[in-house]
Amino acid sequence: MLTKHRDLLDRALQAIGERGYWSAYPESPSPRVYGETAADEGKARFESYLGADFPLDQPGSQGVVATERSPYGIALDVRYPRADAGALVAAARAAQPAWRDAGPAVRAGVCLEILAKLSADSFTMANAVQFTTGQGFMMAFQAGAPHALDRALEAIAYAYSEMTRTPGTAHWEKPQGKHDPLVLTKTFHVVPRGVALVIGCNTFPTWNSYPGLFASLVTGNPVIVKPHPGAVLPLAITVRHAREVLAEAGFDPNLVTLAAEDPGDKVASALAVDPAVRIVDFTGGTAYGDWLEENARQAQVYTEKAGVNTVIIDSTDDLKGLARNLGFTLALYSGQMCTTTQNILIPAGGIDTPEGKVSFEEVAGAITASVAKLTGDAARAVDLTGAIVNDAVLDRLARAEKLGEVLLASQPLEHPVYPDAVVRTPLIVKLSAGDSDVYGEEWFGPIAFIVATADTAESIRIFRDVVSARGALTAGVYSTSEEVLDEVERAAQDVYTHLSVNLTGGVFVNQSAAFSDFHASGGNPAANSALTDGAYVANRFRVVQSRRHTAREEA
Amino acid sequence: MLTKHRDLLDRALQAIGERGYWSAYPESPSPRVYGETAADEGKARFESYLGADFPLDQPGSQGVVATERSPYGIALDVRYPRADAGALVAAARAAQPAWRDAGPAVRAGVCLEILAKLSADSFTMANAVQFTTGQGFMMAFQAGAPHALDRALEAIAYAYSEMTRTPGTAHWEKPQGKHDPLVLTKTFHVVPRGVALVIGCNTFPTWNSYPGLFASLVTGNPVIVKPHPGAVLPLAITVRHAREVLAEAGFDPNLVTLAAEDPGDKVASALAVDPAVRIVDFTGGTAYGDWLEENARQAQVYTEKAGVNTVIIDSTDDLKGLARNLGFTLALYSGQMCTTTQNILIPAGGIDTPEGKVSFEEVAGAITASVAKLTGDAARAVDLTGAIVNDAVLDRLARAEKLGEVLLASQPLEHPVYPDAVVRTPLIVKLSAGDSDVYGEEWFGPIAFIVATADTAESIRIFRDVVSARGALTAGVYSTSEEVLDEVERAAQDVYTHLSVNLTGGVFVNQSAAFSDFHASGGNPAANSALTDGAYVANRFRVVQSRRHTAREEA
Repeated sequence: MLTKHRDLLDRALQAIGERGYWSAYPESPSPRVYGETAADEGKARFESYLGADFPLDQPGSQGVVATERSPYGIALDVRYPRADAGALVAAARAAQPAWRDAGPAVRAGVCLEILAKLSADSFTMANAVQFTTGQGFMMAFQAGAPHALDRALEAIAYAYSEMTRTPGTAHWEKPQGKHDPLVLTKTFHVVPRGVALVIGCNTFPTWNSYPGLFASLVTGNPVIVKPHPGAVLPLAITVRHAREVLAEAGFDPNLVTLAAEDPGDKVASALAVDPAVRIVDFTGGTAYGDWLEENARQAQVYTEKAGVNTVIIDSTDDLKGLARNLGFTLALYSGQMCTTTQNILIPAGGIDTPEGKVSFEEVAGAITASVAKLTGDAARAVDLTGAIVNDAVLDRLARAEKLGEVLLASQPLEHPVYPDAVVRTPLIVKLSAGDSDVYGEEWFGPIAFIVATADTAESIRIFRDVVSARGALTAGVYSTSEEVLDEVERAAQDVYTHLSVNLTGGVFVNQSAAFSDFHASGGNPAANSALTDGAYVANRFRVVQSRRHTAREEA
Repeated sequence: MLTKHRDLLDRALQAIGERGYWSAYPESPSPRVYGETAADEGKARFESYLGADFPLDQPGSQGVVATERSPYGIALDVRYPRADAGALVAAARAAQPAWRDAGPAVRAGVCLEILAKLSADSFTMANAVQFTTGQGFMMAFQAGAPHALDRALEAIAYAYSEMTRTPGTAHWEKPQGKHDPLVLTKTFHVVPRGVALVIGCNTFPTWNSYPGLFASLVTGNPVIVKPHPGAVLPLAITVRHAREVLAEAGFDPNLVTLAAEDPGDKVASALAVDPAVRIVDFTGGTAYGDWLEENARQAQVYTEKAGVNTVIIDSTDDLKGLARNLGFTLALYSGQMCTTTQNILIPAGGIDTPEGKVSFEEVAGAITASVAKLTGDAARAVDLTGAIVNDAVLDRLARAEKLGEVLLASQPLEHPVYPDAVVRTPLIVKLSAGDSDVYGEEWFGPIAFIVATADTAESIRIFRDVVSARGALTAGVYSTSEEVLDEVERAAQDVYTHLSVNLTGGVFVNQSAAFSDFHASGGNPAANSALTDGAYVANRFRVVQSRRHTAREEA
C-alpha cells in the first residue's frame, strides 16, 4: 500500500520541512472535486446510521449505548457497542505483534489507505460532525474531513520521518591498527510503546483526535478510540474504515477499536491507568487533562486542555479590517473553538489610527458591530455560528451575562431548516483590568471580554500573567509600531503562544493550517504538546538494537 | 564559531543518520595524537587543583565544600564553591534571553568550541576521572574524555537537527481562485524550556552527564551542573571550560554553573522542584530517579537508573571466546558499570558445543577461570579493575558473599603505585532459578550471579520477568541456534533491551559506541530515555511561531 501512496508521503515529508502552504485533501465540497453524487450519497449514508445499531464488529461489547443529542435538535439515536475496557485492551495486545513486525513502511501504507477511504467518505463525515458537534456544514466538512485528514497525514509524516531516521541495519567496522578490524552488523528495531488510547472531544471529534490516533498507529501501537459521549458517530465511522482497511491488508482489525460508553461508565479512566496502555492522547477540559497527567503515569500523556486566548490591540491602520476579522473569529461556530479569542485588551484611552486617536468605546463598538452584522440575518448567520454543542455552554453563557457591562447581548437565532436547533450569537462583555478573576479563566463558548487596560504595557503584562497561569492556544496583536510588535512577539515566546499579527483579511487567529501552522506549543498550561512536531511522535516508539559479529567474508 | 566547526557538525549529522562506525575525538592517549607533552601537562594541571580552591568565579557561593575521597587513597581536598540554589537559578534565568536569541547555529558553534577545549584538556580530565571514580587510567581517559565528548557531539547533532528541521521563516501562499492569494510570512522561534539541571553520578561523571548537559545547552537552556559529591572535579573542570568559552563568545558565563554541595545540603532536590527548572537529567540510583520522576513534575525528567543486565547462554561454538569475553566484561572497572552483566543464565544440564555437551559446571568454570586469569597478576590487573568507587559497593560485596555458593571469591589486590587504593576482584556466586529475590535486584559492583536454569526457555522467561520488573541497559545471548537467537531478539524487543549476540572477540556487552549504539532504550525501568535519539532532544525546546500578512510587493 505504501507504493500506492509513496508520492503523497514524500510530498508530506517535503511539506513538514518547508512549512509553506500545502494541503493533500481538497477543502472545497464542490461536486467538481468530490463528484456529482458525493454530497447526496454522504447525506444518505449518514442518515442510514440514525436510529440503528452502528455496524462495528468488535470484541467484548456489553450491550449498546446511545448517548448523542444533536445541537440541531434532530433525532440521532445511533446505538454503539458498549465497551468492555479489559476486552478491548486484550484484543489490542493480541493484535500488536504482527503490526509491530510489519515495520514502518507497511504501516505507513496502511494508514495512508485509511486516510484515502476516509477522504472518499468526506460527506458522510461532514454530516456526522455537523449533527453531533453543532458546527455549520462548511466547517463540519472542512474541519471534520479534509483538514483533519491533513493533520493526520502531517502526524504520519513526522512519525515516518522519525522511525526511519535510524537505518534498519548498519555495518560497523572499527579499525584496529595492524589487526583485523572489529566488525559488527547492527539491527535497529522500531518497537511501539504498547496500547494507545485516544480520548476525543465534543467539538472537533476528528480534527483533534486524528493526529494522536495516526501517530500512535503508524508507530506500531494499537489504538483504542474513546469518543466523547456527545460526538461518537464521527469516530465510529473512522474506526469502521480503519478496521476494514486493516483487515483487507491482512492485519487484525482490533488494532483500532471504539470504546463507546455511557458517561457514568468511566471507561476512559479505567483505560488510562491500565498498565498495558502506554500512550494517551486527550483533548478536553483542564481538570480531566490534569487528572490524566497526574494519574496515567505508566503512559506517555499528550493533552490539549483549556486556555485563555488573547488579542492585544495597540494601534491599527485598518480598524474596519480589524473589526471584520475579529468579528468573524468571535462568530465562527459561536466561539466554540479552543482557538477562539476570549480576551480583547484595549487601552482605555483609545488607540492610534491613521485618522487619529480612536476611543476605547469606538474600537469596542466596531468589533461588536461587526459581530452584530455577521449574525443579524438568522438564515445566513446559522451557517457561520452553527449551534451550541451542549447545555454546559448555555449555562456558562447565562452566568457570563452578569459579569460586567454587556456590550453585545447573546441572541437566540431561529434556524430556517432545523426548528429545534439551539443557536446563540456571541456575548461581549466589557471588563476592566482589575477583573482578572473573570478574564483570568476560560469561559468556553460564545463569550468574549473586551478589557479596558491602562495602556499597551498593561495589556502585555495581563497577556503574560494570564497565559503563564492558564495557558493559551492562540494570541493576536494589532499595532503599527514595530517596537510594540517586537515586544509582544517576545512576550509570546516567553509564554509559548503562537502569535498572529495584524490580521485584517481572510486569515483568522483561530484557524491553523496543517503542514504550516503548529497547533498549540506544548509550552504553556493549555497543552503539553504541539500538533504536530518531532516531540509529538518521537516517544511513541523506542528503538531497540541488536548487534552481532559479522563474518569476515560478509564484511 | 560554527564556521570553524561546521565540518565536524556535518560529519556528526551524517553519522547519526548512518549509525556505522565513527568517532570525532581520538581514543588513543598516544603522544602522537595528543602531543608529546600532553600527558605530563595534564597530570600537572590535575595536581595543581589538589588541596586548593577550585578556580570558579560564579555567583551566590556560600563558603566551600570538599567532599571527594579518592578510591586510590590519595588526598584530593579540592574546595569548590558551595552552591546557593536560588542564586544559581536566578543567574541562569538572567543569562538565558541572549542565549535564546542567539539561535541554533550560534549556540551549536559555542558548544562545539567547548568540546574542543575539553578535548585539548583530555589528560587533565583523565586524571580527574581516574582519581575520583576509581577507574583505571585507560578507561578514565577514554570514557572520561573522548567517548564522553563523542556522546556530547552526538547529542548536539540530534538537537541541531531537531531545531533546524523547521525553517526559521516560511512563505505561505494559499490560492483563492480568481482572487488574490492569501499570503503570510511565518516566523518559527526555537524557544528553550527554561533552566536545566544535570545531576551527575559517581562512576562516569562526564560520560553520563554530557549528553544532557549539551542537549539542553545547545537548545537554549542554561544548565546547572550538580555533580555527585564523590566526583566533583571532572564536572568542575567541564564547567570551567564551558564558562570560559561562553564568556569569550560574548555570553554570560552563568549559562553553565556548578552546584557543588555537602551531601546533606539537598541542593539537587531543591533545584529539581524549583518552578524555573524545566529540564532534569539524572544518572544514579533507582530510588532517587523515581523520586525525581514523581516530584519534578514541572520539568521534563530524563533518568538513567539501575537495571539488571543479563546474559543468556544457550550454546556456543567458541566457549573459550565466550569465557574470555564475559570475563573481561566482569573484570572491567570491577563491574562498576551500569552496563556490566550481573546475571548469567545457563541451563543446569549444560550447553551444546562443537565438542559436544559441556556441563553447567564447566561453562561456569570457564567464566570464573577467565576472570581469575585476568585478575591474577595484581600489578597488571589493577589497570583493568581500577578501584572501588565507594564504601557502599564494599558493603554490598560483603553481603553478596553470603547469597549462595561462591564460585569465585572476591580478592583485595595491592596496587603497585597507590598502596591505599581499595581494589577488589569480582565475586561470582552460583544461584538457582528459584533465587529470584536475589538475582531479581541490582547488585551494583563486582558481583555476578551464574544462575542454573531448567533450560533456555526458562532463561528467556527469567530474562523477560526480571527486565520487565527492574529494567536493564544491556543483554547478551550466546547460541548457535538461529531459532533461539530470534526468540531472544523478540524477547529483547518486548522488554526494550539492546542485545549483543555471540560476542567472543574485542567487542563487549558492556560497551557502547557513540554514533552507532544507543545507550538504554527508554522503554524499561532502567531508563526513561535513550542516549541519544530524537525523543531525547525534541522536548528540550518548543517552537513558537508568529505570522503576519505579507505585503504584495514583498510576496
